[in-house]
Amino acid sequence: MTALGNPAGQQTVRRHNLSLITTSLAAAPGSRAQLAQRTGLTKATVSSLVDHLISRDVLVEGPPATAGIGRPARPVTLNPEGPMALGVEVNVDYLTVCVLDLTGQLRCYRHSVAENRARSAAEVIEQTAELVGEVLRELGRPLLGAALALPGVVGADGTLSRAPNLPGLTGGQPGRQLAAALGLPPLLVDNEANLGALACLRAEPAVGPDFVYVSGEIGVGAGLVVAGELFRGVNGFAGELGHVVVAQDGPDCGCGGRGCVEQYAGQEVLLRTAGQPGLEQLEAAVAAGDPAALDAVARAGSALGVGLASLLNVMDLPTVVLGGVYARLFEAITPSLTAQLDRRALAPRGAGRLSRSPLGIDAAARGAAGAVLDRALRDPAGIPVLAGV
Amino acid sequence: MTALGNPAGQQTVRRHNLSLITTSLAAAPGSRAQLAQRTGLTKATVSSLVDHLISRDVLVEGPPATAGIGRPARPVTLNPEGPMALGVEVNVDYLTVCVLDLTGQLRCYRHSVAENRARSAAEVIEQTAELVGEVLRELGRPLLGAALALPGVVGADGTLSRAPNLPGLTGGQPGRQLAAALGLPPLLVDNEANLGALACLRAEPAVGPDFVYVSGEIGVGAGLVVAGELFRGVNGFAGELGHVVVAQDGPDCGCGGRGCVEQYAGQEVLLRTAGQPGLEQLEAAVAAGDPAALDAVARAGSALGVGLASLLNVMDLPTVVLGGVYARLFEAITPSLTAQLDRRALAPRGAGRLSRSPLGIDAAARGAAGAVLDRALRDPAGIPVLAGV
Repeated sequence: MTALGNPAGQQTVRRHNLSLITTSLAAAPGSRAQLAQRTGLTKATVSSLVDHLISRDVLVEGPPATAGIGRPARPVTLNPEGPMALGVEVNVDYLTVCVLDLTGQLRCYRHSVAENRARSAAEVIEQTAELVGEVLRELGRPLLGAALALPGVVGADGTLSRAPNLPGLTGGQPGRQLAAALGLPPLLVDNEANLGALACLRAEPAVGPDFVYVSGEIGVGAGLVVAGELFRGVNGFAGELGHVVVAQDGPDCGCGGRGCVEQYAGQEVLLRTAGQPGLEQLEAAVAAGDPAALDAVARAGSALGVGLASLLNVMDLPTVVLGGVYARLFEAITPSLTAQLDRRALAPRGAGRLSRSPLGIDAAARGAAGAVLDRALRDPAGIPVLAGV
Repeated sequence: MTALGNPAGQQTVRRHNLSLITTSLAAAPGSRAQLAQRTGLTKATVSSLVDHLISRDVLVEGPPATAGIGRPARPVTLNPEGPMALGVEVNVDYLTVCVLDLTGQLRCYRHSVAENRARSAAEVIEQTAELVGEVLRELGRPLLGAALALPGVVGADGTLSRAPNLPGLTGGQPGRQLAAALGLPPLLVDNEANLGALACLRAEPAVGPDFVYVSGEIGVGAGLVVAGELFRGVNGFAGELGHVVVAQDGPDCGCGGRGCVEQYAGQEVLLRTAGQPGLEQLEAAVAAGDPAALDAVARAGSALGVGLASLLNVMDLPTVVLGGVYARLFEAITPSLTAQLDRRALAPRGAGRLSRSPLGIDAAARGAAGAVLDRALRDPAGIPVLAGV
């Protein structure tokens, strides 16, 4: 309430009003007059904010539309050639990099096999930085920001506190290390299943606001979405579907327990049971009707269904979305999985109770870029002013 | 914004202000002047509200305190002899009725064995209404309201939609039926584990705002508390710990699944394994060091630990509170249960990670009365004007 407080107050209001403009345009394009109507701001305020965002390349104004009476309106839209959002996923056996423009369109993509399990942090960061560098050179545009998806539990400060399949990175801050290698500000960092779930929320509104996104990779994780928001748990450990118990006396698990979902339905167990060296070969064998491959997938689906039934009986979520490996094997894995859900899950499920994520193995990187985009649209004043690459 | 809107607006403000007075006095007694300070209302407004609540027997004003300077202040408190909150639990093998006064003190209590599993709704309601009638006659005071705890899933309209151990009541509205039998307004109705968790939140602030309350009766349920609020799930089915899987190929369960927690740790299985006819006998055998009883309890604890580990790996809650049967067998059941949690649960747990509910088998009835009390304190204008009994 001091005089010194006033300028800060005005800046806060301006920051909020900028966000009204960008979130309104993310929902639908509109002229300055339409924006004034939608936001309740005066036309003069809207014009000043729009001019500012055009000067920052966040918005563009199209040619006057000819239809209608009166002065032709010029549509304002988010700038598809403006600064862009970078999403990176470092997983156990691959790297993915993607770029979304301000309208949410995919503009650049790289996927690379990488044996990260046995590597040091320095080796992982070096290969990732190389791949990102390639993408940024191809893109030739400034960034809104960048985010990193990791297969483990990520603390509020970006520390990867638990990632049994990535021992080299565990305990470190890969988001800071990658930022340093690239000369970028620190990356947003989150668990890959959480970011895959956010990508699903953005890409598939029909799924609804309450669902579990299953991320099937070397590890098995779940992103839990409750009322449109991620459910992270008190310590960020929520959704550890890979360590829900299928059989208390089952095979030993890397977590110290026994009979966890990961020991029946994880990618490595699945390939071993099927006698296939890799996912492509497994998919081909399934397509060719190979009995050993079909049986291995059915058994993984059954165990995953048992674990998911326990999860649904705890959380009461109406919908399951399969991502990663399970999205690729969707037709083959669904019958045994559904049989367990039908038998064991108590709560009524929604119409689209079991669906396939169309983003497949790219969901987490897409979700990471999407998180950057959401942050920029909610707070366009926070978009860094970066030189073009 | 019409002239007609004003009286409604004033009533809303008065209703809100009445609630400021009662919630402030639930935290600590205070004079009219102190209430004005705490609530920000004028002394005149406070006096008018306090006079109204005194006339309704909700508040009482004590004699002037002699200490201090100036005119001696008279402490205003919630009236321990005012209208009271009735809590009822109908479970598979017992009924519990309790009454809390406005200060939260237990004023009346009845517990009665009742073989409700094989009974019709009419028979259950009749015995319950008799027991409640006894309590109300003993009490001889008007009620703030009443609530009913049931061992099953309760819909928003009070329908008991799923209760495999109470087939006679399933599909009906026991809260309405009991209200009709007693001549009371419809009862609040909720799941017994949810109400047990609320009782725990009220009685044991040290447990913190995030925990799972385990209700061990014939069925095994859990009340999930996240950030101080019940987590109910989309359809009210959350917390079905009894149907989390311990072993996918385990014994058939009444839910249609196999190897659920209830088939290893439910009260009936526990008694059968221990070779004891009832809980009192099991407790005596455990106290006497009977090997079969100790082994049965240890095995139930281990299976419950496996199920709870899956629940914690999904929800990431730091604390477990054992209620019902498990509270009674706490010392005997804890070692095997803790061994499984230590081995299998990934997230860090809090200092009081495993505790015993001091309310035991009465938690749900206490929670039901507590829910009525909370509602009355949050909205004292909604307290019904009832004649004394």
